[in-house]
Amino acid sequence: MNISHIEHIGIAVKDLDAAIKHYEEVFGMKCYAVEEVAEQKVKTAFFQVGDAKIELLESTAEDGPIGKFIEKRGEGIHHLAFAVKDIEANLAEAEEKGTRLIDKTPRKGAEGLDIAFLHPKSTFGVLTELCEKKD
Amino acid sequence: MNISHIEHIGIAVKDLDAAIKHYEEVFGMKCYAVEEVAEQKVKTAFFQVGDAKIELLESTAEDGPIGKFIEKRGEGIHHLAFAVKDIEANLAEAEEKGTRLIDKTPRKGAEGLDIAFLHPKSTFGVLTELCEKKD
Repeated sequence: MNISHIEHIGIAVKDLDAAIKHYEEVFGMKCYAVEEVAEQKVKTAFFQVGDAKIELLESTAEDGPIGKFIEKRGEGIHHLAFAVKDIEANLAEAEEKGTRLIDKTPRKGAEGLDIAFLHPKSTFGVLTELCEKKD
Repeated sequence: MNISHIEHIGIAVKDLDAAIKHYEEVFGMKCYAVEEVAEQKVKTAFFQVGDAKIELLESTAEDGPIGKFIEKRGEGIHHLAFAVKDIEANLAEAEEKGTRLIDKTPRKGAEGLDIAFLHPKSTFGVLTELCEKKD
């Protein structure tokens, strides 16, 4: 695989507005976008920090993935996303090397990226996302 | 606070050698250092990815923080570390703004950095570390 950098870290929060306030007022970061991803039943807020982003995630439905995550484990880091070139080839290579894929083919995520998740059972407990910004 | 970038993401693993192999052979990253931090009862392995690092953490004792984390929650992301300038001033500002500190003053961490942890109850469930590389 050809990972260039951490694209973002996804953090599950109960109250997006309160978390944005904390990241801005205590951490001194600037929220540059808020976006709802209906398919994932989340509302997201983004902060750039170096070449990576923090993606805060608030569930818009109890039965969504973030709602279920918070119910089971509480707030906290939900996933780690790497930026790659040629996401399809990276997925194929990961699978060929024994990694269990959640998404066999990429789908559209926040910020218009092509994204796909690897199963945490194959990645030492870390829900790992691959992302590619295609032109 | 003046966070410049994500310094590292700490990931708790049961078997450091197996995890290093995965990060190298599947993710295509290169482990550039392995270090034992006796005070924290961990053995660590580092990978550079963009301007951040992945820090894999294997416990060297069941009663260490990583051993207890894995026993309770399983393998996965343990903490998120931000790089700052003037860690003492950043800690003071965080506390003044209502953040509960685990470390009131910095201590030495891996790679010779000055580090301090913020309590996850104050940071939306994320165990947050501040790091500074002093000359």
